[in-house]
Amino acid sequence: MDKVAAKLRVVRNSLGHVQAVEPTIIDHGSPEAPRPKYEYFKLNGWGYNDTKILFDSAKNCGYVTGSRYSFAKLPLTQLEEFVKRDVGLDVRSKAKLPQDMMAVDPPYVNEPFISDLGDSFSRLSFDDRERMTHSHGHTLDEMYRAKFGKFDRFADCVVYPGEHDHVEKLVKLAVKHGVVLIPYGGGTNVTKALLLLKEEKRMIVSIDMTRMNKVKWVDKVNMLACAESGIIGVDLEKELQKSGVCTGHEPDSVEFSTLGGWIATRASGMKKNYYGNIEDIVMNLRVVTPIGTYEKLSVWPRISNGPDLFHMIMGSEGIFGIVTEATIRVRKLAEVHEYDSLVFPSFEDGEKFMWELARNRVYPASVRLVDNIQFRFAVAFSVAPQSLKSDFLQRIARFYLTRIKGYDPYKLAVATLLFEGSTEETQYQKKLLYEIAERHSGMSAGEENGRKGYRLTFLIAYIRDFAMEHDFIAESLETSAPWSKVLPLCENTKKQVKESAAKLGVTIDPFVTFRITLLYETGATVYIYIAICSRGLKDPVAAYEKIEEEARWCIIRNGGSLSHHHGVGKLRKKFLPHVMAPCGLEIIRGMKQNVDPRNVFAAGNIVDLEEPKAKSGEDKPSPTPKL
Amino acid sequence: MDKVAAKLRVVRNSLGHVQAVEPTIIDHGSPEAPRPKYEYFKLNGWGYNDTKILFDSAKNCGYVTGSRYSFAKLPLTQLEEFVKRDVGLDVRSKAKLPQDMMAVDPPYVNEPFISDLGDSFSRLSFDDRERMTHSHGHTLDEMYRAKFGKFDRFADCVVYPGEHDHVEKLVKLAVKHGVVLIPYGGGTNVTKALLLLKEEKRMIVSIDMTRMNKVKWVDKVNMLACAESGIIGVDLEKELQKSGVCTGHEPDSVEFSTLGGWIATRASGMKKNYYGNIEDIVMNLRVVTPIGTYEKLSVWPRISNGPDLFHMIMGSEGIFGIVTEATIRVRKLAEVHEYDSLVFPSFEDGEKFMWELARNRVYPASVRLVDNIQFRFAVAFSVAPQSLKSDFLQRIARFYLTRIKGYDPYKLAVATLLFEGSTEETQYQKKLLYEIAERHSGMSAGEENGRKGYRLTFLIAYIRDFAMEHDFIAESLETSAPWSKVLPLCENTKKQVKESAAKLGVTIDPFVTFRITLLYETGATVYIYIAICSRGLKDPVAAYEKIEEEARWCIIRNGGSLSHHHGVGKLRKKFLPHVMAPCGLEIIRGMKQNVDPRNVFAAGNIVDLEEPKAKSGEDKPSPTPKL
Repeated sequence: MDKVAAKLRVVRNSLGHVQAVEPTIIDHGSPEAPRPKYEYFKLNGWGYNDTKILFDSAKNCGYVTGSRYSFAKLPLTQLEEFVKRDVGLDVRSKAKLPQDMMAVDPPYVNEPFISDLGDSFSRLSFDDRERMTHSHGHTLDEMYRAKFGKFDRFADCVVYPGEHDHVEKLVKLAVKHGVVLIPYGGGTNVTKALLLLKEEKRMIVSIDMTRMNKVKWVDKVNMLACAESGIIGVDLEKELQKSGVCTGHEPDSVEFSTLGGWIATRASGMKKNYYGNIEDIVMNLRVVTPIGTYEKLSVWPRISNGPDLFHMIMGSEGIFGIVTEATIRVRKLAEVHEYDSLVFPSFEDGEKFMWELARNRVYPASVRLVDNIQFRFAVAFSVAPQSLKSDFLQRIARFYLTRIKGYDPYKLAVATLLFEGSTEETQYQKKLLYEIAERHSGMSAGEENGRKGYRLTFLIAYIRDFAMEHDFIAESLETSAPWSKVLPLCENTKKQVKESAAKLGVTIDPFVTFRITLLYETGATVYIYIAICSRGLKDPVAAYEKIEEEARWCIIRNGGSLSHHHGVGKLRKKFLPHVMAPCGLEIIRGMKQNVDPRNVFAAGNIVDLEEPKAKSGEDKPSPTPKL
Repeated sequence: MDKVAAKLRVVRNSLGHVQAVEPTIIDHGSPEAPRPKYEYFKLNGWGYNDTKILFDSAKNCGYVTGSRYSFAKLPLTQLEEFVKRDVGLDVRSKAKLPQDMMAVDPPYVNEPFISDLGDSFSRLSFDDRERMTHSHGHTLDEMYRAKFGKFDRFADCVVYPGEHDHVEKLVKLAVKHGVVLIPYGGGTNVTKALLLLKEEKRMIVSIDMTRMNKVKWVDKVNMLACAESGIIGVDLEKELQKSGVCTGHEPDSVEFSTLGGWIATRASGMKKNYYGNIEDIVMNLRVVTPIGTYEKLSVWPRISNGPDLFHMIMGSEGIFGIVTEATIRVRKLAEVHEYDSLVFPSFEDGEKFMWELARNRVYPASVRLVDNIQFRFAVAFSVAPQSLKSDFLQRIARFYLTRIKGYDPYKLAVATLLFEGSTEETQYQKKLLYEIAERHSGMSAGEENGRKGYRLTFLIAYIRDFAMEHDFIAESLETSAPWSKVLPLCENTKKQVKESAAKLGVTIDPFVTFRITLLYETGATVYIYIAICSRGLKDPVAAYEKIEEEARWCIIRNGGSLSHHHGVGKLRKKFLPHVMAPCGLEIIRGMKQNVDPRNVFAAGNIVDLEEPKAKSGEDKPSPTPKL
């Protein structure tokens, strides 16, 4: 017996169920190893422990706690009025406070597996906080349970590999001992991809990749860099910056999500117009599967070697293996980072502007068109003094009154812009962009409004937490659609949400708002925020999920995709047969059968395997063989 | 028995082997149906029947026959001198004339299959010319056999489906009756992907897709078009042009190759810098596999729905099914089409220019840097009078003498350029491009030289035929490599070819020339022409293949890929385990097993299936069951 197994003592009751494991944690990590997530991330909600939205009744304003963000502690003077009028939320209502942390079931332990593992890890933890953190992502259901409920199944332990070889060993042993492995990166998934299957009777080991966080090399001649998959987005950029390069990949989760997670979910970033989606960035990857480690044996700019297996791994959501490393295309640091914003008389005018940008491939790093209510939402979370905003609205009024004879402040739409790149290319983009804006009655609304528009991105999930404690449940969803479908899709989805909510007894008209964002010549991404009042609903999450489901059917009927970048997970599995021909699912199932015949990677995402179901009535893991 | 089977009479000898099938052809096609290929394409070489390179001893010049190309019949006055000095080929040597058409073995006929087929086709042919044409692509080996030898196995018949449903029926019946299907588009493959397996005992039916050649719709709002897969490149562009759009996909084979062929081989085009590779263009596809028709059920600009199965089909070289239709991204017709050319003091200077273009994403539709010998090769196939060329060289001399103090006409390299796009974007590109060229001592050599540079593209395969009839065998190969590997790869590959050739007893130093072309931020495509003198070689093709094999090992050792866009086929299968981790092949084999368990699509490309080998000594197909 090796030293790790010798150290661990598993206490069982007379039925063989585990009561405790001692010590809870074995850590081989160096002092610089990343801290366990619960030390900085909430156990009952989104984001940093120190960051929360609160309302100060004495000062009549909201504010963000902590000091992490530039806007922390500044007064949100318009918050109360906006959420009362446009959402129906009373910020002075008594907050429904969440539990500190849910109760966690004892683990199921496969001792032969643990014993064989030896010292092949950086950290091994049976700590309840870690087990809980690693048993969920951030879909509404998961967040609601984190605050007010409990998960059906918990990761039995969390293993942090320190190098590729650890992962190879973990996978081999999981196959040998019938253990389930769930790769875990930033945990920011929003498709229930990380939620564990209730009926899983085997030991579930969460593989936390964040200790594999090194940038291995940067090659500035070929504009490549190689990094371990557990590196978190912001750390990757920080590290690359030291060499004067960047990826430019910036999903909204970039503070927490990892390179490996981006690959597993086929991620997209806010600045994809300029830097590309993850499939444009990844030039090589190493993925450990039960039948071996797959990788290309060198890095080439583009090849024609039969089927490209990268596209089997990208978007595979943990069902085939664990990505340990990737070689990515990097770019020189941009010379220019410039924000701007444009006001359009209506969302329809703005959409035409976006469409023309795409047709002409005028691609600023980011351009986001928000509808009227989202614009006002952004203003409510802006810290500018009231006077400044009135002044701004007056300027818009003057502009439109003289130029297009009348405008409606409750109709206008705003596009926020971010230009990145070389001086020449951003100048070229700007020239063409403003010509196109002009044709659609776009008026510049200044850099500051552009910059502020983007900060809402990092606040959104905190806002959802605030809403949840005030009887509102909220979620974002996204789709992509051909240009001609974008506006009808928005209109019909809004109608659908309102109709579905009314049917379910939601008393206040739902808040539904749209953003048209990432540009493609053939279409665009539509981002949707929905918030519904949960007061009086017996099961608010079930009600919301019904509304979202009906909204998704509506989106699909209206030419939208199942997902542009969030993925399928377990949340959207049922829709897959409606967006691809049936043999597609059969092909994916066949891949799974070939690559992972023992279903070690039993995340349960994307497709259901035709396997015997767990016996009903038997919810708890059964006892394991002892050493 | 249906009417088709009733019409067909299969004459067999006493052993059951087919002697004849009557009538040879059943054609349901309309009068506008494309003509069978042999009516316009050579049976013993590349290209149009009327187009051939000849040397006129009386006039001391070469010329191209026919009237199809703008340069046809014009005198190639420098041809003789160049090929004598730089290649070692004597154009006055007696040409070794090819056979008109090789002998074709009688077909193997699975009568129950033919009978069940009914009328589900546009044309059904047992014609020897069609069977021969459909039994090969245009790899050197195949061309040499077309001229001087024989194939080991012939397609037993050629079926032209007229619509998607015909293909679905063909695939169903092939599964039922144990028939092999080989999809056939333009037949221009150069990896032996179309060469049939000698040991195949089942009836082989070549599915010629060229009667499925309609553009079904064009959508100018969403910049999409849907076309049947059998449409030939030039026809697709012609048809799209009527709607004011184009694909811009222009592989060198564009006169003959098809949309479906591009998908099956993961093709790339000359103008990919501006229009993208095939994977950037295809937005949806329909592929008929033995387990059903796969397609996405709508067209979305980008999605994250699990593994993207398009990338399983793209590059699958006919082993999974038949692509019947694709929806593609289109572009507005370019406002500007402008050629130019640049002279650099050396290939090394030119390479630095190319590298800097890529790093700065200055992407003219095409830019090709040819080495010194390829530049002189192009001049030899140029029709400009001698005087003009001397004048040009004098201008270059003057420029370099004053600017960089000396130059060597036997060292300079030339980049040909094609700008396409809107006025603004080409102006922007040109400004940046000429600044970069200036930094690397590039001197403009005029539009005419640029334009002429590109025409060599369409002549190359005719030149190979000319060479083959004068004791030279020639081939092109390609790779992609990171920028830092490009120059050493060229240098080492040239050395390797010369060394390999010498070892094999090739008496004249081989002709080896390089072109750096399609740009990527992380690397480039390298295109290589090789010609060796076959005089005195016992088996010229075997010798050449040995040289190419050693060259490919050298390319891989030097960081080059197995293929940038030609593909794997049967020619490069043996290298695959050396460019990807072993489980990659296992995964592809697993896909094949799942999608085509009976190996209906027995093209034998990419991977070998672990199947019982045909008994040796039994080369002929065995008799079939009778109706």
